[in-house]
Amino acid sequence: MELSLQTWPKVEDYLKTKNTIIIPIGSTEQHGPTGLIGTDYITAQKIAIEVGEKTNTMVAPPLCFGMAFHHMDFPGTITLKPSTMMLVLLDMIESCYTHGFKKFMFINGHGGNINPTATAFCEWKTKDTDTTLQLENWWRLPEVQAYEKIHFGDENGFHATCGEVALTMHLEKEAFKTIPKTQFKIERPKYSMPMAPKEFRKTFFDGRMASNPGLATSEHGAKLFEIAVDTISKKVSEL
Amino acid sequence: MELSLQTWPKVEDYLKTKNTIIIPIGSTEQHGPTGLIGTDYITAQKIAIEVGEKTNTMVAPPLCFGMAFHHMDFPGTITLKPSTMMLVLLDMIESCYTHGFKKFMFINGHGGNINPTATAFCEWKTKDTDTTLQLENWWRLPEVQAYEKIHFGDENGFHATCGEVALTMHLEKEAFKTIPKTQFKIERPKYSMPMAPKEFRKTFFDGRMASNPGLATSEHGAKLFEIAVDTISKKVSEL
Amino acid sequence: MELSLQTWPKVEDYLKTKNTIIIPIGSTEQHGPTGLIGTDYITAQKIAIEVGEKTNTMVAPPLCFGMAFHHMDFPGTITLKPSTMMLVLLDMIESCYTHGFKKFMFINGHGGNINPTATAFCEWKTKDTDTTLQLENWWRLPEVQAYEKIHFGDENGFHATCGEVALTMHLEKEAFKTIPKTQFKIERPKYSMPMAPKEFRKTFFDGRMASNPGLATSEHGAKLFEIAVDTISKKVSEL
Amino acid sequence: MELSLQTWPKVEDYLKTKNTIIIPIGSTEQHGPTGLIGTDYITAQKIAIEVGEKTNTMVAPPLCFGMAFHHMDFPGTITLKPSTMMLVLLDMIESCYTHGFKKFMFINGHGGNINPTATAFCEWKTKDTDTTLQLENWWRLPEVQAYEKIHFGDENGFHATCGEVALTMHLEKEAFKTIPKTQFKIERPKYSMPMAPKEFRKTFFDGRMASNPGLATSEHGAKLFEIAVDTISKKVSEL
Amino acid sequence: MELSLQTWPKVEDYLKTKNTIIIPIGSTEQHGPTGLIGTDYITAQKIAIEVGEKTNTMVAPPLCFGMAFHHMDFPGTITLKPSTMMLVLLDMIESCYTHGFKKFMFINGHGGNINPTATAFCEWKTKDTDTTLQLENWWRLPEVQAYEKIHFGDENGFHATCGEVALTMHLEKEAFKTIPKTQFKIERPKYSMPMAPKEFRKTFFDGRMASNPGLATSEHGAKLFEIAVDTISKKVSEL
Amino acid sequence: MELSLQTWPKVEDYLKTKNTIIIPIGSTEQHGPTGLIGTDYITAQKIAIEVGEKTNTMVAPPLCFGMAFHHMDFPGTITLKPSTMMLVLLDMIESCYTHGFKKFMFINGHGGNINPTATAFCEWKTKDTDTTLQLENWWRLPEVQAYEKIHFGDENGFHATCGEVALTMHLEKEAFKTIPKTQFKIERPKYSMPMAPKEFRKTFFDGRMASNPGLATSEHGAKLFEIAVDTISKKVSEL
Repeated sequence: MELSLQTWPKVEDYLKTKNTIIIPIGSTEQHGPTGLIGTDYITAQKIAIEVGEKTNTMVAPPLCFGMAFHHMDFPGTITLKPSTMMLVLLDMIESCYTHGFKKFMFINGHGGNINPTATAFCEWKTKDTDTTLQLENWWRLPEVQAYEKIHFGDENGFHATCGEVALTMHLEKEAFKTIPKTQFKIERPKYSMPMAPKEFRKTFFDGRMASNPGLATSEHGAKLFEIAVDTISKKVSEL
Repeated sequence: MELSLQTWPKVEDYLKTKNTIIIPIGSTEQHGPTGLIGTDYITAQKIAIEVGEKTNTMVAPPLCFGMAFHHMDFPGTITLKPSTMMLVLLDMIESCYTHGFKKFMFINGHGGNINPTATAFCEWKTKDTDTTLQLENWWRLPEVQAYEKIHFGDENGFHATCGEVALTMHLEKEAFKTIPKTQFKIERPKYSMPMAPKEFRKTFFDGRMASNPGLATSEHGAKLFEIAVDTISKKVSEL
Repeated sequence: MELSLQTWPKVEDYLKTKNTIIIPIGSTEQHGPTGLIGTDYITAQKIAIEVGEKTNTMVAPPLCFGMAFHHMDFPGTITLKPSTMMLVLLDMIESCYTHGFKKFMFINGHGGNINPTATAFCEWKTKDTDTTLQLENWWRLPEVQAYEKIHFGDENGFHATCGEVALTMHLEKEAFKTIPKTQFKIERPKYSMPMAPKEFRKTFFDGRMASNPGLATSEHGAKLFEIAVDTISKKVSEL
Repeated sequence: MELSLQTWPKVEDYLKTKNTIIIPIGSTEQHGPTGLIGTDYITAQKIAIEVGEKTNTMVAPPLCFGMAFHHMDFPGTITLKPSTMMLVLLDMIESCYTHGFKKFMFINGHGGNINPTATAFCEWKTKDTDTTLQLENWWRLPEVQAYEKIHFGDENGFHATCGEVALTMHLEKEAFKTIPKTQFKIERPKYSMPMAPKEFRKTFFDGRMASNPGLATSEHGAKLFEIAVDTISKKVSEL
Repeated sequence: MELSLQTWPKVEDYLKTKNTIIIPIGSTEQHGPTGLIGTDYITAQKIAIEVGEKTNTMVAPPLCFGMAFHHMDFPGTITLKPSTMMLVLLDMIESCYTHGFKKFMFINGHGGNINPTATAFCEWKTKDTDTTLQLENWWRLPEVQAYEKIHFGDENGFHATCGEVALTMHLEKEAFKTIPKTQFKIERPKYSMPMAPKEFRKTFFDGRMASNPGLATSEHGAKLFEIAVDTISKKVSEL
Repeated sequence: MELSLQTWPKVEDYLKTKNTIIIPIGSTEQHGPTGLIGTDYITAQKIAIEVGEKTNTMVAPPLCFGMAFHHMDFPGTITLKPSTMMLVLLDMIESCYTHGFKKFMFINGHGGNINPTATAFCEWKTKDTDTTLQLENWWRLPEVQAYEKIHFGDENGFHATCGEVALTMHLEKEAFKTIPKTQFKIERPKYSMPMAPKEFRKTFFDGRMASNPGLATSEHGAKLFEIAVDTISKKVSEL
């Protein structure tokens, strides 16, 4: 049930019996030498649509841009200021709330979005409304992390991870045809978040954070997709 | 050349010889009883990707949300405040400009976006940069309007038009399978823009503005797509 | 009926039977080597006052400053940021609406104001009020353009036009006594709006945009004034 | 030397030897049953122009709108939010500073403007520029107050004062022809500033604050004008 | 009655019979070579607590940061932008008003806070609430100034004054043990406020403004404390 | 080394060899029937001062107000909007950075501050500076939680916890003399954060979140203080 493929009378009907909406949020940012720039919104959107199918829940179009300033020293990254991102989320929540949506499941594909999103939730809640705002970061689900631990171990890393590259290999097969498969050496420099653009590039010269995306395969991606969809579907049902 | 399907080293390469980026912007809003809520971003995005193919130009992910307050009395519409939309566009332009993009072609699918986008362009230009910012609204191209005039005449209307419904029938065939094909009577009430949510609904009770989307066909959509892509491709080449 | 020359009880009386207000908005910006810096607000204000006389409508004091960043490389220009101008207009509309004004006729003297004004109108309309907001740009009226075409032809230009210089020669005769009458050669460089300050000056070195204000006369100005006042008066009556 | 009546080359010449600009700021607000709504900007503007004449100093167009929320329960008042007024003043200062103006004399006609203007000055000064920002409130000049004390004594009041009504009688003779001359009883209710709109109206039912504008005459106005112009001219010369 | 040392049920009880709150606001800024950086909030807070004791009034925790940009060229100064300070004060007022506080006594220790605070009061008052907002600057009380005149005469100065250093010597005895007692020569350079950081340091090289804090003693401080507390306590009782 | 008790020359000296500053941030909010409203800033400030002593590090005055909207249905809570809090933190960081501070240790006493603080850090980092921004929430330190687990077990709870009440009993002995010692029954209602004011009060009627502060003692507080100070001191040394 993609909102973008509905007519308004169908949404009106939906709201007679349900009031949940799933909103995928991601980012447009570098994902290392072999990862896709759209990784974070593609994964969030595709998981969201599948969760929507399984749970018969309305799914909004994705917010393709997030808070990615720390990746700005790598070409192709497009970032929102944290304060801008908060305003966008507040407008989206307010629009949906006006129509009668009360339960919001945000499916997120990017770590940098967590703080501004949580802060936007707080700002919304100052209005004293009866809404439930939940944020699920697919790569942080214990079920997902357990799988990654077994299959990628210490080489999963923290950005341009085996997990997210695998997931996009499954979802965007075509795109990976022109990307040579490489194994990477892992370095573990000392750092503390948040990082500024130049700091990040100096510390993680090619954009990976302690990951070897060479371990990623489309098959792992298919499995991770299944796990993420199943786990979040259950959470949507319990909202 | 979808930016989201590139790696950052590929974007780095691209920027060695070119500095144009295409950015599709749309809206998530009602499009009458038989039009898709995602019409405006779907059309903008698909046209943008095809223009990118033909002109070998990088295409950003779509901004799926725009300025659609006047449609807020119809469920499913998600709108940004004009001031929020301006901030989003400014962040996007600034990000791309940081990487070396100098020529921006915004392909727009929604009339309500025109004023905030043009105002955001002005705000950006206060910085005295050497950028070219161009906005093309596909449905306003003379070539598109000429085709619509011949085939839909006075029944094309101003929102949920024959043209945009036809284009989405071509691009999202599956979605239209569950939408009954209907002919609509056209009314031409007096109004002046901009309109407030309740004003709009009172004036245009089912969301159409003087259009009979019953005239739309997938074949017309295919033709309109071709015209829009060809016309804008030429403009991109001339930037 | 200038608002500034009324007492509040007179305004209270006015509002018992009418709810229209005329608001002149202009700019303080260069108008070429022989045009007045105040051209845009002087013309808007004088037309507004005369329209107010003819239609018995209340006329607010002028907003003398507008969005004129592109002229900032010429001394004397004072500009508001687009976002500031929007806030000013919103405050003005809200004040008048609080008193019971429902119909707003903005008479505008400056092209750069159009986008921020239209965007401010959208932002106001998000409040779902029963207001009519109309923007009339005197120099874009077909009746005005027809007169200019006949008398100035291709030499009218786009900034520091024959039309606006003529109009100010009629309205501010004294000021022109110390300005030598000159004929200008017209150049037609390629450009696209919006322009940054330095871009504009580089393209249009003395501030004119393809105009020969040497054709302007006070007599033409008197005629243009009459045409603009008559045309807008009719529009005010039809609000 | 009104800026609005100059051409930009004349401003360029002026800036070769001088860097002072006079900026009149006022308000559009009720001034009791017999005072003009435009009093505060009319007086500021007319004093400014005359000071400009005497001191050969450039005078900007007036900011006709100020911080007048406390008068909003009287029809005809148009107010800016304090935060909006600050942004407007900052944009104006920045524009002038870009051209080379370094000394700013703000001539103010309205008490409610003092705090936001002083705060905007502080905000500007955070930029560490070499500007002098001076605010002169004509009605607070000791020379003006001395004259008022002698001629109006305790009946001058605090709003819609004898002084300001007299000054406008001198400057806008025509407007007073239709305003009956009345003597008012003075009440001195307890109050503390700032006041909210309803509070103000409840306390000062007809808009006057402890004044009897019936004492005002055009002759007093002429004298006050002379005093204010002379006093501020001296201050401009000493900048 | 310090708010921070109450439980919420005690505040609930308090609000059954009283609706006054005292809010101390200060600054963290240089106070010359021998004055404490915390001077302005320490004095405001300690006076506030004592006034609260004497009048049985609730006292909020201090806002330790204010508008101190002009002191930013001296290490240790922490300043808020004027616009930020306004937002903080508005949030604080709104919070208290929500609970039922209607009378606000702000006890201020820093001159730079006056304009933004007064402007924030205006902004709050646009909401048309029945609140009383009073600002008392302890060092401007005529009773305090009279004492200072007698004991410090012309050497009291305008910043890092004898009065404020004396007051802190009384309140923070320990801190002064490591500060050598020095007499200072007084200079009286020409200046006009507001000043930019570099301007200030250039004019007042060691941070004092025409003061000789060498005259300050803890005994004077004790006396000034008593005077300030007594005077403001009376004002609180009369709110 | 409290910044507020230094003179500016002492800060100048400090900055010659060190560039770390500790900033305590807290909140003014309800802490259940027996907890102090100032708990969160008192604990943060006192821990910060002691850490400063042990590590010879400069300690800024506390930000006594934080993001506490969810507690606004209990009288006495004073909250900043999340967006306001971000602006305050950014101004504070910018001020300190201007003077040469590069390492920031924020010691936080309130959970609601975490998201806006982390988001403000991101916003600051968009400037590409060489700063380290670290946030330590004393009650979340594993060392603290281990102690609480042993001594309070499941009755520690999530707000108005045994730990924080114990800590304030140690730090503010006097204040607890008038607070009757009570044992509370613990309820564990279902909830999800963030909560709106009314939601919170409805769910946690007396302000406690699953805690029995009756277990708190001053002795436990003394021990917790020692643990928190020791642990954070080590972190400061490692910055």
